[in-house]
Amino acid sequence: MPNTQEVIVGIDMGGTSVRALVVSPANEILAVEKTATNPAAKPERIIADLAALVEDVLRAGSVKRQQLRAVSIGCPGAVDPVHGIVYHAPNLGWEKVALGPKLGKLLRTPVLVENDVNVGVTGEYALGAGQGAQELVGIFVGTGIGGGIISGGRLYQGARGAAGEVGHMIVQIDGPRCGCGNHGCIEALASRTALERDVRAAIRDGHKSMVLKLMKERGKDRMTSSIIQRALKKHDPVMLKVMKRAQYYLGVMVSNVVNLLDPDCVVIGGGIAERLGEEYVAPIRKTAYEHFLRRHDAERVKIVPGILGDNAGPLGAAVLARRRLERES
Amino acid sequence: MPNTQEVIVGIDMGGTSVRALVVSPANEILAVEKTATNPAAKPERIIADLAALVEDVLRAGSVKRQQLRAVSIGCPGAVDPVHGIVYHAPNLGWEKVALGPKLGKLLRTPVLVENDVNVGVTGEYALGAGQGAQELVGIFVGTGIGGGIISGGRLYQGARGAAGEVGHMIVQIDGPRCGCGNHGCIEALASRTALERDVRAAIRDGHKSMVLKLMKERGKDRMTSSIIQRALKKHDPVMLKVMKRAQYYLGVMVSNVVNLLDPDCVVIGGGIAERLGEEYVAPIRKTAYEHFLRRHDAERVKIVPGILGDNAGPLGAAVLARRRLERES
Repeated sequence: MPNTQEVIVGIDMGGTSVRALVVSPANEILAVEKTATNPAAKPERIIADLAALVEDVLRAGSVKRQQLRAVSIGCPGAVDPVHGIVYHAPNLGWEKVALGPKLGKLLRTPVLVENDVNVGVTGEYALGAGQGAQELVGIFVGTGIGGGIISGGRLYQGARGAAGEVGHMIVQIDGPRCGCGNHGCIEALASRTALERDVRAAIRDGHKSMVLKLMKERGKDRMTSSIIQRALKKHDPVMLKVMKRAQYYLGVMVSNVVNLLDPDCVVIGGGIAERLGEEYVAPIRKTAYEHFLRRHDAERVKIVPGILGDNAGPLGAAVLARRRLERES
Repeated sequence: MPNTQEVIVGIDMGGTSVRALVVSPANEILAVEKTATNPAAKPERIIADLAALVEDVLRAGSVKRQQLRAVSIGCPGAVDPVHGIVYHAPNLGWEKVALGPKLGKLLRTPVLVENDVNVGVTGEYALGAGQGAQELVGIFVGTGIGGGIISGGRLYQGARGAAGEVGHMIVQIDGPRCGCGNHGCIEALASRTALERDVRAAIRDGHKSMVLKLMKERGKDRMTSSIIQRALKKHDPVMLKVMKRAQYYLGVMVSNVVNLLDPDCVVIGGGIAERLGEEYVAPIRKTAYEHFLRRHDAERVKIVPGILGDNAGPLGAAVLARRRLERES
């Protein structure tokens, strides 16, 4: 049966790959396409590739061009959602790229742009682990740590549109140096990058670990989430210890966020959470609950792993776009 | 000229004193009364005293009983503003006291109850240092550290009504123990209580300081804000060092809050800020700016001392009451 409804294409632009979904008004996924990003390419080239990707995914979903209502893109970095500008995206090497207007002109369709973590949080809030929450904080742990806040059903943007940077919350003033230049940010203590740094340091210090062997076997030069999962499963002592400490730091950070914002739901997403699920989140939750200022009804604050995986971003982008278009129409 | 307009009595209940203002619809202060609190007294006694205080302050303002539209009280501790219940106020020794309904019955007037820091933040936002801000965070440094968040012109309450607890943000995981049981909360690092602990420890360790002498001269058994001011003015080396460190911690904490919430204004209130003003806030601001993730427009975030002093709470209580009554009418 051919599909005649209006659709939105939701896109998540990562540093290594781009994922596009065709999303129906009922938020069903009608098609998925994925391509590699080429960070060496100029913005114009990447924007042309995005236009081609949109055409491809529509074709894959047997959706006609005229059914496309909008394209909505989650971008890593600082964006101006009102004008569709990506003004600082180090992973893409972009500075002030008019992604929305340019891609919109190529496709002759409205193109919305939002920060990638904000769309991921919106996805988990609207369609994932955070459904039904009133006030939600989403925390995505990957090579970095990003976050977003939903309040009263909407993204909490802050005065400069910069709200939600949980990753650079300092929880250990004299802690290790972070990529941002500060010391003791949670990103420098508990991101995948920090875990790998600590595992390598322990190995250099003579502690026994299978992690480097696992990486070699699988041809990985980075300690990916799958390597972490494998090492934990095999009870690698270094991995167990490093992970336990990171979970403790994350629990303290979650408690800081809850003491400040009092959400009823905290969703922890990203690669590690996706692979390990409750095994990853349970110790974080335990530490967080122990540190809440208000402990008597701690369990009213749900702390849960994300459930949408790689689809959180593009689904959230589609949800946001539909909401913004409705507001404008 | 007799005053015939409707007024609100705004009250700030502290652990040691109660301050009541008669506030006109234009937010002029028509009269002020202050009494000592007696924490040994039962809630019923204190509530009867509050009723008498309201009558007194109305008399002092030459305001007739029938001009009183409402009483609005800021209370230290956890409150339920919807039902006017103070359900946990350790400073008063109160557990689940129906302050609003009980005082309302005595006075035959609506009585609104809110957390004391929330009313103080509302005061500075509406009538003080935070006027014109869009998104504001208020931080009150005293024997403890409290805070409140204003977003879109309203108090940000959170899902359980517990939002704004900046004082228990952990910035040094292995830091000194806090009254809440955790370690390294900003309250345990930079409150007046923490400053006094650190000054006394330095003196015990043999460092020269005039602080204990100043306290003795003025008959104080605590290191009050006026003692701190005096010691700084006299370049007391211990006080200078301890204060500098506390300001650094506060700057890091403010940066954590700004990275998360992106307000356009942070007001720092409480006794020390009131006495020292810019001298206190300037180093906090400097450290905060240096730690912002988004530094290129850091100065768009105003970080300023409160200007309303002891009137912030009762004025804010009056503002909140007027807003709530208008919404209901």
